[in-house]
Amino acid sequence: MDIATLIGLILGPSLVLWGIMGGGTSMKTFIDYPSVAIVGGGAMAAAMISFPLNHLLRLPKVVKHIFMNKPRDPKELISEMVHYAEVARRDGILSLENSVREIKDEFLVTGIQMAVDGTDPELIQQIMESELDAIEERHAVGKSLLDNVGRFAPAFGMIGTLIGLVKMLSKMDDPSQIGAGMAVALLTTMYGALLANMIALPMAEKLGKRNDEEMLIKNIILRGVMAIQSGDNPRVVEQKLKTFLPIAQRATAEEAA
Amino acid sequence: MDIATLIGLILGPSLVLWGIMGGGTSMKTFIDYPSVAIVGGGAMAAAMISFPLNHLLRLPKVVKHIFMNKPRDPKELISEMVHYAEVARRDGILSLENSVREIKDEFLVTGIQMAVDGTDPELIQQIMESELDAIEERHAVGKSLLDNVGRFAPAFGMIGTLIGLVKMLSKMDDPSQIGAGMAVALLTTMYGALLANMIALPMAEKLGKRNDEEMLIKNIILRGVMAIQSGDNPRVVEQKLKTFLPIAQRATAEEAA
Amino acid sequence: MDIATLIGLILGPSLVLWGIMGGGTSMKTFIDYPSVAIVGGGAMAAAMISFPLNHLLRLPKVVKHIFMNKPRDPKELISEMVHYAEVARRDGILSLENSVREIKDEFLVTGIQMAVDGTDPELIQQIMESELDAIEERHAVGKSLLDNVGRFAPAFGMIGTLIGLVKMLSKMDDPSQIGAGMAVALLTTMYGALLANMIALPMAEKLGKRNDEEMLIKNIILRGVMAIQSGDNPRVVEQKLKTFLPIAQRATAEEAA
Amino acid sequence: MDIATLIGLILGPSLVLWGIMGGGTSMKTFIDYPSVAIVGGGAMAAAMISFPLNHLLRLPKVVKHIFMNKPRDPKELISEMVHYAEVARRDGILSLENSVREIKDEFLVTGIQMAVDGTDPELIQQIMESELDAIEERHAVGKSLLDNVGRFAPAFGMIGTLIGLVKMLSKMDDPSQIGAGMAVALLTTMYGALLANMIALPMAEKLGKRNDEEMLIKNIILRGVMAIQSGDNPRVVEQKLKTFLPIAQRATAEEAA
Amino acid sequence: MDIATLIGLILGPSLVLWGIMGGGTSMKTFIDYPSVAIVGGGAMAAAMISFPLNHLLRLPKVVKHIFMNKPRDPKELISEMVHYAEVARRDGILSLENSVREIKDEFLVTGIQMAVDGTDPELIQQIMESELDAIEERHAVGKSLLDNVGRFAPAFGMIGTLIGLVKMLSKMDDPSQIGAGMAVALLTTMYGALLANMIALPMAEKLGKRNDEEMLIKNIILRGVMAIQSGDNPRVVEQKLKTFLPIAQRATAEEAA
Repeated sequence: MDIATLIGLILGPSLVLWGIMGGGTSMKTFIDYPSVAIVGGGAMAAAMISFPLNHLLRLPKVVKHIFMNKPRDPKELISEMVHYAEVARRDGILSLENSVREIKDEFLVTGIQMAVDGTDPELIQQIMESELDAIEERHAVGKSLLDNVGRFAPAFGMIGTLIGLVKMLSKMDDPSQIGAGMAVALLTTMYGALLANMIALPMAEKLGKRNDEEMLIKNIILRGVMAIQSGDNPRVVEQKLKTFLPIAQRATAEEAA
Repeated sequence: MDIATLIGLILGPSLVLWGIMGGGTSMKTFIDYPSVAIVGGGAMAAAMISFPLNHLLRLPKVVKHIFMNKPRDPKELISEMVHYAEVARRDGILSLENSVREIKDEFLVTGIQMAVDGTDPELIQQIMESELDAIEERHAVGKSLLDNVGRFAPAFGMIGTLIGLVKMLSKMDDPSQIGAGMAVALLTTMYGALLANMIALPMAEKLGKRNDEEMLIKNIILRGVMAIQSGDNPRVVEQKLKTFLPIAQRATAEEAA
Repeated sequence: MDIATLIGLILGPSLVLWGIMGGGTSMKTFIDYPSVAIVGGGAMAAAMISFPLNHLLRLPKVVKHIFMNKPRDPKELISEMVHYAEVARRDGILSLENSVREIKDEFLVTGIQMAVDGTDPELIQQIMESELDAIEERHAVGKSLLDNVGRFAPAFGMIGTLIGLVKMLSKMDDPSQIGAGMAVALLTTMYGALLANMIALPMAEKLGKRNDEEMLIKNIILRGVMAIQSGDNPRVVEQKLKTFLPIAQRATAEEAA
Repeated sequence: MDIATLIGLILGPSLVLWGIMGGGTSMKTFIDYPSVAIVGGGAMAAAMISFPLNHLLRLPKVVKHIFMNKPRDPKELISEMVHYAEVARRDGILSLENSVREIKDEFLVTGIQMAVDGTDPELIQQIMESELDAIEERHAVGKSLLDNVGRFAPAFGMIGTLIGLVKMLSKMDDPSQIGAGMAVALLTTMYGALLANMIALPMAEKLGKRNDEEMLIKNIILRGVMAIQSGDNPRVVEQKLKTFLPIAQRATAEEAA
Repeated sequence: MDIATLIGLILGPSLVLWGIMGGGTSMKTFIDYPSVAIVGGGAMAAAMISFPLNHLLRLPKVVKHIFMNKPRDPKELISEMVHYAEVARRDGILSLENSVREIKDEFLVTGIQMAVDGTDPELIQQIMESELDAIEERHAVGKSLLDNVGRFAPAFGMIGTLIGLVKMLSKMDDPSQIGAGMAVALLTTMYGALLANMIALPMAEKLGKRNDEEMLIKNIILRGVMAIQSGDNPRVVEQKLKTFLPIAQRATAEEAA
């Protein structure tokens, strides 16, 4: 898992816990199961109405993939692509068949395999681009789902608080219970705010950023496969791919290459 | 009906009910008909001023269509289109006249019928595209209407609560009634939030998603009809249509084909 | 007036009135003239600073035009245009001079008159398009003004409530007046919310929708005049204009034609 | 000054004053200098961090220019341009040198001077367009600054109210002071709302509208200078420039010309 | 540091301090460490989940660079570019090798060095443009991070206040402590609002403005290097570059040149 995400996921709740525990208040005061159910379940129900079932089912995998897999280093990838270009130049494109077995990135395998099979270049590009679109759309669905949780959780937090307030107000016989009643009522709002701002919204942000990084990698692969397929000189391949990098990283890439 | 929508529509209200019933509060405390009228009727009135009458009347059909009809599986549709391409290739395009009678999708029927009638290809494309636009616009109107309900319902909830508070505050002779008065006042806000976040806004989201799915299907049909009309080889038709699918689904589509 | 708008404008206030009258509260409790002045006048003052004078003066006419004039039926308009095309074909374009006198739509009159006068086609198109832009801009100004009222009314509602609260809080000698003071203070917020959500914002929405309908009509006229001017065959004119209609309406249009 | 702005700037505060004075509350209750400082100064501090110094210094001039200078009447400007075209046609473009001295619009002077000097037409256009961009950007900066004041003023209003509440709550020994304390605390929120909704936001709107008007004028000048430079017939110049006007105003422009 | 930023950063807190100190309240009342931790730490945790680690680490440098480095004066830069064009014209482009050593702007050095090395013009442009994109993206990441702090800080302020309220409400045995409890609870909301509106959001704005200024400078360099490389006459180089300036500054630039 990305180290920043991990630290953030530990730091946030710890601070909130510290704030809660300080001054000798019991942890129990801050736990109310019906409130958890209304916020969590309500946001889930809203998400289920909002999204088609297959989007919902596909999601855990997308989220896991995006938070667990570290995106590759673009410089290293460029070196690898240049290496394949050299092999193809030296021993013919068919010799890449052997390399394919050792490559882990499925997208790269598909691309090189099509080049080896002599698929029409235009079709290779079309297929790879429609795959890029599909990946991007999958990520967009994931981001949209997390954004929706971040939008509906506070709303259900408020709904829960309203329920609690109405309950408290409708039986004010015992004034000593007013404080406790309001405390419980406010918990739902707090849960909603925490779910949205400590988990859903920041994760949606990260998903967007990760998508950008992965798209960069996939675009380098796409451009690289097209260059290898057309039999470009390895130096030219390198030059083309390095335009994806800022100047500061180009030098290093040159050495790495 | 889409199973996720159904579960969501049951789960949300159940949780809210559970939250309401817990702790022995009577269900009656949470029901107030004038509040229902102000939120539901107010949002409806705002919608009636916002939209032309024909948009409002057309709506139930659009919503029903979108929530009841399951969109077709793109892979299966591609196999079907390839099948028509084979028939047209083998027996001439006129022979598709017979197939037309068995097709259920009206849009597909219109397209193939025009191809059989020898309509000018450019005109076929123009007509089908303007139909696509019309469908998309119908869905956009539906989504916009649900979004507006989701925007006006909480506003009328607040208006209702203000009415309740003014009433309560203007006759505070009997302090023991303050609690009950405020409880009733808050109900309108709660109704507005529930109508918006449990029904209108999630349904607007789903409508948007469903539109995307339906547009994909319609675009495959459009491209397929054009290819069949121009007498493309069935293999080419298949290849063209499969670019609408992500790589993972292409293999399966190939088998299916 | 559009029937939906009318119903909405009656339904909304009726429901609010019902909510107010219920439980035997006097209507007077809900009327406070300074509050009306702050919300209505404040929103008006903000609009006067926001918009140039000529925009403000032009507005009532735009709003009246858009809510009173029913947009024409596109199908019927297409039949009319095809009719003119037939006349022009049969008796020469000059013969349209006679028809012009019976046409009510000023935009159509301008277009056909220019065609009859033998104005350069490019100039006709340029003039008609710049007129389209001018109409669209007028509607946009109207919508923007209503949107601004919908934005400033609640803000001045809040300002009025703050004034009321400060007044009440600064002389709490007689606790029995606190309730009444707060009730009056809250009225301004309620007025602001009603002005925004029951009138300004829904009307802004409708103005946007009406603009779309009118633009469709004007675009059919523009395309039709250009086709008639170039001496197109009436069948071709019809075919060109019908691409503005969805398939379902095309058939009917064909009969009507 | 634009009369609508003036009326708005008088009407708004008058109504608020009327609301404040009503019921015999002293004006003093509504004045609190620290609150003024926090809202006004806070919004100013936020603006100073938000914008580079030269933007801030340039602003008063832009605002004054836009609110004081009435934009020219497009019809009259077109007549003037047509007049220059006639002079240039009759006596040669060099004779415009004399007219230049009497023209007040600097942008028009620059344009005609370049035409008289025989500057390359492409360069004239490039220079005038980059000037248009610069004017537009200046206005955008002004609008953005006013919008930011409208965004930060309410935020600092809330901050001031929180400060007031904390102060009041931390010394509740004398309950009779609670009301007065809260009254003072609420004033900051009121000041923020007034600064934003009565001044900053409406002025930002007007700045946007004025920019549109001025851009129209500048575009007519640009197109006119280009037409004069290329030696167009005055009738053609008029025809070209009148496409900037809606049909209703074209007739009048024709007479004026 | 930009003088406006500095004044703003001193003015804002001073005013708030003045507001706090006024009326003899002790400064201590406004300090609560757990509240600081929840707002500051919570916003930081949300940022860490939102952004990849390398974005977070790169940030201080970007922020420092943008607030410390004053962007160059475009007029002066144009004079410098014209000077290089003269040198290249007079002594050949290779003679610029000597000038390079004295140039401080790395981007300009890279560009001229490539021109001296005889790199293909198209490649020079491609490399410089991809560098521009990289700079712009770096700034966008910085702005996005500050915007996120400005979004999450108030949210965590509200969460902290809810925690404080729940604590206070759950032990209302000693009514005299209610005021103090609420005061502490409100502090977190105040901290969140201050962090957002006095620091994060205005700084995000400035970052955006600074990016625009720097992009202008970099674009002048890019265009200048391309012109020098192609051996343009120094007068032409000047003319091309001056189109980046508004008319008012062109005269001065001419003198400076």
